[in-house]
Amino acid sequence: MLSKNKIKQILSLARKKERDETLLFVAEGNKTVTDLLPLFRCQTLVVTEKFRETLPGFQAEEIIIATKEEIKKASQLNTPQSALAVFYQQEYTLDVTSLKDKLSIMLDTIQDPGNLGTIIRIADWFGIEEVICSSETVDVYNPKTIQATMGAVGRVRVHYCDLCNLLDEIPGVPLFGTFLQGKNIFCDYLPPNGILLMGNEGNGISPQLESRVTEKLFIPNFPIGRKTSESLNVAVATAIACSEFRRRV
Amino acid sequence: MLSKNKIKQILSLARKKERDETLLFVAEGNKTVTDLLPLFRCQTLVVTEKFRETLPGFQAEEIIIATKEEIKKASQLNTPQSALAVFYQQEYTLDVTSLKDKLSIMLDTIQDPGNLGTIIRIADWFGIEEVICSSETVDVYNPKTIQATMGAVGRVRVHYCDLCNLLDEIPGVPLFGTFLQGKNIFCDYLPPNGILLMGNEGNGISPQLESRVTEKLFIPNFPIGRKTSESLNVAVATAIACSEFRRRV
Repeated sequence: MLSKNKIKQILSLARKKERDETLLFVAEGNKTVTDLLPLFRCQTLVVTEKFRETLPGFQAEEIIIATKEEIKKASQLNTPQSALAVFYQQEYTLDVTSLKDKLSIMLDTIQDPGNLGTIIRIADWFGIEEVICSSETVDVYNPKTIQATMGAVGRVRVHYCDLCNLLDEIPGVPLFGTFLQGKNIFCDYLPPNGILLMGNEGNGISPQLESRVTEKLFIPNFPIGRKTSESLNVAVATAIACSEFRRRV
Repeated sequence: MLSKNKIKQILSLARKKERDETLLFVAEGNKTVTDLLPLFRCQTLVVTEKFRETLPGFQAEEIIIATKEEIKKASQLNTPQSALAVFYQQEYTLDVTSLKDKLSIMLDTIQDPGNLGTIIRIADWFGIEEVICSSETVDVYNPKTIQATMGAVGRVRVHYCDLCNLLDEIPGVPLFGTFLQGKNIFCDYLPPNGILLMGNEGNGISPQLESRVTEKLFIPNFPIGRKTSESLNVAVATAIACSEFRRRV
């Protein structure tokens, strides 16, 4: 049975302040919980009896058997699910020198948790190991971010830091940014390594980071010159850019 | 001033049943309202006095000057905005024979309104004029869909119909679908015209439509064979596929 106190504790983790203090986060939904169980240390697993039987071997400090209705009380989702879990956050040390030899993603103040989650899922698909976020970027452990990663959060390392300071440490590593004007990404030479910088949903890449970009790229609309949307969604632009980098390798 | 009755009417349009009966829909946010004003017939425009002055010439049956706080009462958004509008829905007749000569998108039961909106924005960017949805696909006039299109809903024609019946009418038009197995989309020949079919978020393309697909495509992950996310978000996959079709023209 899921006690009132436990429900309160789980719901409190929807707040960043609470997550920062406890270093815990919540994952919801049968698929996400199943995917993350082998990847993160589990503090509390809440499952229906039926769903419990479908899970392969796993470790959790506490297992609570509950009904779907009880799980819904602790849930941020509209559709009732058979599983919810509280996990310990994972902290990664960024190996700065490794950034010279592979393709990584850098995010300048992404605000929407769904966009961040989708970008992490894209990074996973395209074998990008590091996603480096500005300190102002939305929290990776936001429940909506976790949901949108569809389990990829366990396979991609997400870091937060001052991006300008980091770039100071790796001179010579190419920094690519997508802009509304730049070299046609479909035609340009793209190396197998470097950093792909994506900007904020409304304001794009900030001026101080723009000045560090070594190659400005543009995703052409079609036909070129036609009146169209002003821009693409940032996760969509990330996907197209990653696919361009990877299709050439 | 925004009356209680008007607030009630606007809020009621969050329900599909109400939209279907009145053939109206709501658009929110300064940018979306500004973008849609020249594209849809406006029944009611609700704006702050200050924002009203920034708008270029436009027509609306009724203009209500209101405060941000009043607008928030009629809003589905969390962040208060300076504009909200009720528009008349637009009905399009699908010119079936035109589908032979251009690239179009077909959607099999897309459920998430944000995904549909993002796909419409992608279609606009890549000059795709028709998005043809199965009758089970989420409503294009859902407020979250309208929001996610960022104005593109005024430039792309969205149709609802029985997809199998429609395909019967256009024999010989190539039908492309993305699957977890198929020809590598980065390497395969892609013609400038045809229909790109995208499937439901959880279940993919339904069996009866799969049997109509003339070319199964696969977006390769990287490196091929690595353990990764099982799939890409449907809007992300649509973006990569559209970019592949258009980069070759």
